[in-house]
Amino acid sequence: MNYKFSNRVPKTDTDPVGDILKAAADPKVTSFAGGLPAPELFPVAQVQAAADKVLKEKGAAALQYSSAQGVPELRNVILKRLEVEGIHTTADHVMIATGSQQSIDLTAKMFLDEGSAVIVEDPTYLTAVDVFRSYGAHFVGVDMDEDGMKMDSLEEALKNNPDTRLIYTVPTFQNPTGRTMTLERRKKLVELADKYDVMVLEDNPYGAIRWAGKNLPSLKSLDKTGHVIYMGTMSKIFAPGLRIGWVVAEPKLLKKYTMMKQSADLHTDSFSQYVCAQYFTDNDINDHIEKITALYHKREQLMMDAIDKYFPKGVKHSNPEGGMFLWVTVPGVKSSQDLFDAALKRNVAVVPGDPFYGNQPEPGTFRMNYSNTPEDGIVDGVKELAAALDEVMTVPAPK
Amino acid sequence: MNYKFSNRVPKTDTDPVGDILKAAADPKVTSFAGGLPAPELFPVAQVQAAADKVLKEKGAAALQYSSAQGVPELRNVILKRLEVEGIHTTADHVMIATGSQQSIDLTAKMFLDEGSAVIVEDPTYLTAVDVFRSYGAHFVGVDMDEDGMKMDSLEEALKNNPDTRLIYTVPTFQNPTGRTMTLERRKKLVELADKYDVMVLEDNPYGAIRWAGKNLPSLKSLDKTGHVIYMGTMSKIFAPGLRIGWVVAEPKLLKKYTMMKQSADLHTDSFSQYVCAQYFTDNDINDHIEKITALYHKREQLMMDAIDKYFPKGVKHSNPEGGMFLWVTVPGVKSSQDLFDAALKRNVAVVPGDPFYGNQPEPGTFRMNYSNTPEDGIVDGVKELAAALDEVMTVPAPK
Repeated sequence: MNYKFSNRVPKTDTDPVGDILKAAADPKVTSFAGGLPAPELFPVAQVQAAADKVLKEKGAAALQYSSAQGVPELRNVILKRLEVEGIHTTADHVMIATGSQQSIDLTAKMFLDEGSAVIVEDPTYLTAVDVFRSYGAHFVGVDMDEDGMKMDSLEEALKNNPDTRLIYTVPTFQNPTGRTMTLERRKKLVELADKYDVMVLEDNPYGAIRWAGKNLPSLKSLDKTGHVIYMGTMSKIFAPGLRIGWVVAEPKLLKKYTMMKQSADLHTDSFSQYVCAQYFTDNDINDHIEKITALYHKREQLMMDAIDKYFPKGVKHSNPEGGMFLWVTVPGVKSSQDLFDAALKRNVAVVPGDPFYGNQPEPGTFRMNYSNTPEDGIVDGVKELAAALDEVMTVPAPK
Repeated sequence: MNYKFSNRVPKTDTDPVGDILKAAADPKVTSFAGGLPAPELFPVAQVQAAADKVLKEKGAAALQYSSAQGVPELRNVILKRLEVEGIHTTADHVMIATGSQQSIDLTAKMFLDEGSAVIVEDPTYLTAVDVFRSYGAHFVGVDMDEDGMKMDSLEEALKNNPDTRLIYTVPTFQNPTGRTMTLERRKKLVELADKYDVMVLEDNPYGAIRWAGKNLPSLKSLDKTGHVIYMGTMSKIFAPGLRIGWVVAEPKLLKKYTMMKQSADLHTDSFSQYVCAQYFTDNDINDHIEKITALYHKREQLMMDAIDKYFPKGVKHSNPEGGMFLWVTVPGVKSSQDLFDAALKRNVAVVPGDPFYGNQPEPGTFRMNYSNTPEDGIVDGVKELAAALDEVMTVPAPK
């Protein structure tokens, strides 16, 4: 039968990123495509201890409906994490969401009308683009360099798009590039948000996973006018299977978030909220973050060394100080899809750059993830990828 | 600051139902207002055993990202529950949602445009009304009697509203009335959906909790044309704190649901999905449902007896064969809110009828929940409520 869908539903059933991730899930494929944490570091035994304690001490509460804003014990835990970001606030500024994906979805639902503009880094987190699009928004991509979004381009974009409702940014160890916005640009961004009276959605999933450079203050901590909405998640520092994220905003705004959240799924899983709060109470999350950071750094180093050794000359890659991703630019490639296909034939998967762009994609770009591949797979995978690149580069590598 | 919200965001910060539930949460208040299961029956020890087993045997999977459609083990468990509803289907027809609230939200997002009509029972589940409204829909309420939605009124509504995108119904032990749609009307509803080519969202949270009458086939099991989307939930038969619901639809349609679900929160909590599947594998849910049903029946009987004994003459109430709610109609009351206020002064809370109506509310109506109040509180609460009714009835009770 022919369904009469709303305008929000994509007209096609094609899901290029879904297809990529499906291909990458083949056990014989070495996948640099996903964005998954290393499962061997999940604190399974500690989660088990936390779950036992929660069910023994407050089993009925953990299995019952709870409040839309989130379990108070967990909101208090998050306040401590926020201190690290320079955000000194109170529990009435914090709402628990069902993963940071929901924070993005609720923000889009709340701020975007048909025809609104959203300013994004170009390239940006591709699933955010899908969400914004589903609420009828169009995109304005702002150029980046190794220091993050360029502020002159941002101001230009704000001037040219008075219908801008939101600036979406991942300032630290950005997805997909791994780049970090400098302090100077952070200050400028907050200033521009105030000047043009536009809300900023600051997404910070990776910020805690830093092995080099200095911790930078969050945009939210620099914001004096209430234009910045901050969002965080347990997915990269703890466990993504427990769908727990959070939104930090002024109480007046947070009340609207809580109403929209209630309408979306009543509240986030009570059991997982209590288990997560218990885990954070009984363990030092910083010890765990140190372990993650050490492993990801080791894998990143291995990957960059292999790239520098085996990839054709002229290839560029970002040099992240933390997080989970490298961004690679290959000269002389007409289509990122060709590159993906050639790599997959050699049983290696990456995510081609195209879907990360709000505007015109830069061909020959792709994202590589290092957190989820054991060390022995990284070097071999990069070698195969190097051979695939040789096949699709139409311009010979410079000598 | 003044936020520029989208058109979806309610203009006011008032949340009458939220305020009611907040007042009802006062420990000195006997609350018949909520819709919570009896926490003393939660199978805490069995959940603990299930959580232990999951973390021991597949800890990494339970803490990792999982698929948007849902964990296969849980979808298989749900197939068995669907058999009870006469729905014989396969796992590719089933998607896990973050509670049935999310099933409603995704359905609204997928089918409703600004100005679309949604046909609902009058009265209906109030939080569904909020969701539909947030996507710009307007309502057409269809009259009910003790046998559920009236089919002549439904056909009239379909004729008069060619922009109808959805019929939303809770056919069994409806919220808020506790009424059940007869088999004859179920057949007619499915026939009308086909004739007018309109999708039906069948919401069945309470169907398994039956102490009288015969099990009736679900609308979905009667549907030969694919117009019925079925949704179920773990909230009433197991535990609402684990936010687990499901949508059953044709694979082509389910694929769209899965795309929208991914954009909303990537996937439902992996840990809770595995724990729930494990619980259902190691225990007979029917034993548990029997216990719930026996307790709720006892409480319902106690409440109805007390109402018949203490309430003023002329008061009517529904006589449900299962579920969690009674619907009460008091003659000679001008405003349901007056009734709520008088009851709250006597430390008893109910939900006044107004917010349950898509169209014009019937004054003097309210919903009473019996599942969540211990037996000793029920009789005393009804006595106080009776005194409050005496105060607000402007027409004296007939002798």
